[in-house]
Amino acid sequence: MGKYCIGVDVGGTSVKLGLFTTEGELLEKWEIPTRKENNGSKIIGDVADSIGQKMEQKQIDRTDVCGIGMGVPGPTMADGHVIKCVNLGWSECDPAKELGEMLGIHVKIGNDANVAALGEMWKGGGKGHDDVVMLTLGTGVGGGVILGGSMVAGKRGIGGELGHITVNPNETERCNCGNCGCLEQYASATGVVRVARKLMEEGKEETALAKLEVITAKDVFDLARNGDPVAGKAVEILGQYLGLVMANVSLTVDPDVFVIGGGVSRAGEILIQVIEKYYRNYLCITSDRADVVLAQLGNEAGIYGAAKLAL
Amino acid sequence: MGKYCIGVDVGGTSVKLGLFTTEGELLEKWEIPTRKENNGSKIIGDVADSIGQKMEQKQIDRTDVCGIGMGVPGPTMADGHVIKCVNLGWSECDPAKELGEMLGIHVKIGNDANVAALGEMWKGGGKGHDDVVMLTLGTGVGGGVILGGSMVAGKRGIGGELGHITVNPNETERCNCGNCGCLEQYASATGVVRVARKLMEEGKEETALAKLEVITAKDVFDLARNGDPVAGKAVEILGQYLGLVMANVSLTVDPDVFVIGGGVSRAGEILIQVIEKYYRNYLCITSDRADVVLAQLGNEAGIYGAAKLAL
Repeated sequence: MGKYCIGVDVGGTSVKLGLFTTEGELLEKWEIPTRKENNGSKIIGDVADSIGQKMEQKQIDRTDVCGIGMGVPGPTMADGHVIKCVNLGWSECDPAKELGEMLGIHVKIGNDANVAALGEMWKGGGKGHDDVVMLTLGTGVGGGVILGGSMVAGKRGIGGELGHITVNPNETERCNCGNCGCLEQYASATGVVRVARKLMEEGKEETALAKLEVITAKDVFDLARNGDPVAGKAVEILGQYLGLVMANVSLTVDPDVFVIGGGVSRAGEILIQVIEKYYRNYLCITSDRADVVLAQLGNEAGIYGAAKLAL
Repeated sequence: MGKYCIGVDVGGTSVKLGLFTTEGELLEKWEIPTRKENNGSKIIGDVADSIGQKMEQKQIDRTDVCGIGMGVPGPTMADGHVIKCVNLGWSECDPAKELGEMLGIHVKIGNDANVAALGEMWKGGGKGHDDVVMLTLGTGVGGGVILGGSMVAGKRGIGGELGHITVNPNETERCNCGNCGCLEQYASATGVVRVARKLMEEGKEETALAKLEVITAKDVFDLARNGDPVAGKAVEILGQYLGLVMANVSLTVDPDVFVIGGGVSRAGEILIQVIEKYYRNYLCITSDRADVVLAQLGNEAGIYGAAKLAL
């Protein structure tokens, strides 16, 4: 049994890597650029080289490493296959097998949002629980479902794709996925700004948002905190739809805890409060509900979760 | 290792029991009345007596029985505890432990809808799959989620309570659970009749429903099949909200197959078609969707699932 495990988080711009003890102590982290040319064909070789160099530098033999985990930005099948990773240029491939053969170390793979949820369960906001659902509110809305300590990837790799749950069947604008009314259209950084803009254009109330040239999610939350009615309404809508999805997820898999991460989660307490209000509202059949907490690992959730996946 | 297992399905009117081989062959089934007096305190004793008699009659020793499974109409905790079963008069209790001590055979317990889903996975519409979600459209709407061959009971016992997922936040009538806009309000036998009545009262279109003194779910489907516009609209609404929930469940746990059971499922092909139309509509991120099939075990799903639970 090795003493180390390695977590790899493959993103569209950079690959984050972390060397961990099997107890989950992060010994060292580093990054390499993601080379997307030639349909991303160099990415796995680059990752192998980087890990090889680190092991040499640290005088770690491959028998000391009990495994490597890797998160990728796309759906992954139970057998490790990737069907498509648009952000990396990948079509059908088996990157875990490739990397494993290059290094002679066993590699496991998962969708990045599911892997981040695993990281938060292991060492972050969900620590101490084994049924954890994470919602990552970034440019889009990512999700991850962990039951009994294991990721629910699903038969088609769409387990935990909570950002594309339909929350408003009456929406007329389309989401990137082709559907209308996805959670992502209201609760991502882009979404809350979109909603605030629409409310501003309706012009029913005065708003300080009108004075800004560029509106960010942070602006919307800052103004909401100061009582701006339009920004406040956009935050309410975000909370309403997140609370709705969380109630519905509770009625499906009934987790211990929801972990809220991503850039939008920096809004902190105001976000948790508005989510909890609507979560309670939509979940009536029990008064004993899951906790709602902020993520703790930030950008490192991916490497933590990938390392845990390897164990 | 025993040759037999026993499935018990405790309902509000009767308790169904089944003697099975461990391969899942139903050797004999029987029923006893559910005695609800004194807060249902006699139910478990009655079940023990009935099983004891059957074993004596068949000359089965308790070492020949590898276990007993039991489905009950309420949430069950991971440790076997029941918090409340309104239909049986039970408050907090541990019926699996009680029954086990009376018979000297290991007993496992689960919520009846989850147990029925397990039965359909084992020997019914979901046979051959291990990630199965069942929706039971009866007086209410029950649900069961099976992942990796095991029931997802959840941390509070509300896993698979799909009937109480909010599908219409704008609904003003209340569901029994206290929420407004639950799936059950549109897709149960009672729900589809409620919707048909409301549409009839709006009086926008002629309908043969107006000639009926009592309207049943079967009437609504029969008239919809014959082109009645109001009945047809009620069926579309049922399909829309079922399809919405199924898309959202797919984006959470991504099962292989959805099994549709309960009295309403006797409507057959028209039901599957309308559900599939909306399921496709709301699940855009993949073109490879779960199958939607009818349940096959009818009232026996509960004893099959309970027997499987015991294995």
